[in-house]
Amino acid sequence: MSASTGQPPAKRPTIKAVAAAAGVSTAAVSQAFNDKGRLAEATRQRILATAVELGWSPNAPAAALRSARTRTLALVVRRPTDVLGADPHFSELITGIEGELSPRGYGLLLHLVAGVREETALYQRFAAEGRVDGALLTDARADDPRPALVARLRLPAVVLGPPDGTGPVPSVGLGHQGAGVEEVVAHLSGLGHRRIAYVAGPAELHHTRLRRDAFETALKAAGLRPWAVLHTDFTEVSATATTEALLAAPDRPTAIVYANDSMAVCGAGAAQRAGLRVPDDLSVVGYDNLPLGRWLHPRLTTVDQQVQRVGGAAARALLARCGEDVAAPVLEDRPRLVVRESTGPAPG
Amino acid sequence: MSASTGQPPAKRPTIKAVAAAAGVSTAAVSQAFNDKGRLAEATRQRILATAVELGWSPNAPAAALRSARTRTLALVVRRPTDVLGADPHFSELITGIEGELSPRGYGLLLHLVAGVREETALYQRFAAEGRVDGALLTDARADDPRPALVARLRLPAVVLGPPDGTGPVPSVGLGHQGAGVEEVVAHLSGLGHRRIAYVAGPAELHHTRLRRDAFETALKAAGLRPWAVLHTDFTEVSATATTEALLAAPDRPTAIVYANDSMAVCGAGAAQRAGLRVPDDLSVVGYDNLPLGRWLHPRLTTVDQQVQRVGGAAARALLARCGEDVAAPVLEDRPRLVVRESTGPAPG
Repeated sequence: MSASTGQPPAKRPTIKAVAAAAGVSTAAVSQAFNDKGRLAEATRQRILATAVELGWSPNAPAAALRSARTRTLALVVRRPTDVLGADPHFSELITGIEGELSPRGYGLLLHLVAGVREETALYQRFAAEGRVDGALLTDARADDPRPALVARLRLPAVVLGPPDGTGPVPSVGLGHQGAGVEEVVAHLSGLGHRRIAYVAGPAELHHTRLRRDAFETALKAAGLRPWAVLHTDFTEVSATATTEALLAAPDRPTAIVYANDSMAVCGAGAAQRAGLRVPDDLSVVGYDNLPLGRWLHPRLTTVDQQVQRVGGAAARALLARCGEDVAAPVLEDRPRLVVRESTGPAPG
Repeated sequence: MSASTGQPPAKRPTIKAVAAAAGVSTAAVSQAFNDKGRLAEATRQRILATAVELGWSPNAPAAALRSARTRTLALVVRRPTDVLGADPHFSELITGIEGELSPRGYGLLLHLVAGVREETALYQRFAAEGRVDGALLTDARADDPRPALVARLRLPAVVLGPPDGTGPVPSVGLGHQGAGVEEVVAHLSGLGHRRIAYVAGPAELHHTRLRRDAFETALKAAGLRPWAVLHTDFTEVSATATTEALLAAPDRPTAIVYANDSMAVCGAGAAQRAGLRVPDDLSVVGYDNLPLGRWLHPRLTTVDQQVQRVGGAAARALLARCGEDVAAPVLEDRPRLVVRESTGPAPG
């Protein structure tokens, strides 16, 4: 893996060229970089993007910092802030990343954004201002515009996602994303379950689609059809309401598979409050293998997707791309089912 | 609250003076700032600290950036990485902070450090390199050296902790830290509990001592003594082992109060696995009021210390100190007991 900091310096264009291309005055270009004056944010972003495009940066801070190491990596998370708090997935991920960064004196620059436009604007700003050495891209999506963007910006990056080897930016993550869900279906059908429901995440996320497809394919192979597949926004309110709806239905499911552990905990709680025993009356399966699942009663059956280790491996891969002497990460090949106490034979 | 960026520029000393004071060559001073060459980290830190002391910074990047906004705030957490993952407290805190930062386009630079020397070295580096606009200081401790340090470095900062108004850096947090624990003791003794144990955090943390003292004082006022007070490192392993030890004792406690919700969940799980019913045989109380506690079965009785809101308020206070036009935060005056289902009348 080669460091992206070793590229030859581009021929230096002028501030006038940037101003002309962006359709603003040279004073506005200066203001955009100094974060002073009263530029509209859209104008500022356009100027920064134009400067990056032309390879221009102001003499003093950005250019000097671009050649220096910032010892900072960026993690931009496109998720509502309240979900960040509710889902321990992110603290697990950050823990894994920090496990590699912290001993090397690196920091993690965390940005929460609402949408893709805001996220791409940030990468342009990072590249223009030289604020970070590289970026970890989360939540790989179908037709993801980000790998091409960061490649164009020459911003070292790694995608957190299943390795595919096709894009301009390497992916670090477990392969065979469907394998965990396949094991779940085999486990439940082996226990005699025939009415199995799936509580998924938001439909637009890449991994939601992968796992939903794997769930339906595996059920089909077992001669079954999903009792129901319901999408949520990953919140606890949504997980609880969905579970209550599933359990209120006639001929209710005997097993519910959740797209993450937090939702599974909410689901088990809702079932217990409805007077059902877990797993005697209802089997519950999570996804992530977060620490808490080992300590709950009953202990949670889940899929280990090694969130911490993937975070650490992605950090190592990015550090290597930033020129650090870090060995290539070793990851298991796929997510694996961890059978604990929240699943049992189908009732009746 | 005035912005700390408005101070008059200091008289400018020379690189020679810095080199002489640090006992190194001027080339070494340059290297320390450029992060190039083969300086030992200790030497590099000494040079940066000396430069800060003398008010010197290199012409190009640091000085220019110091006058510019980085739109980045720092959060340095002195905690083992595995505890960060296990304790949702930090994702709640970061969620609260990001709730204020993200709409303003600010990022949060997160550093995990092992000890106080590493943490103070980071603040010196932030000040010398102009990498952040300000810092949020976590885990206020007795005889905390950090407020004086960041004041000397002229790094805008806010301490996350009970407001006391005595130090050089303002604190943002709930006052009356003991009030929540007092309410817990009144609640439990009102339910007839006489054997109440306390599972605390690490003894060296400021809030651990405050709450432990409050627990013992409140019990005394109720004519009781602690059945036991045990310290943990906040991990789930430690919480579970501590609970098992408490429950194995003859004449075991009828109520256990935990220093955070994660440990309370582990404790409730351990009790249920030991065949005890919560709350019929054992009452369990957490601390933090994390989202998950509302969805577990039984729902967790806990103390709401508004982690997200405190994080948000501290971020607002720091943004104001960094020159942003942000209104002063409004916080409740103290933590409050939230009674749910995990506490009930004392058995027998």
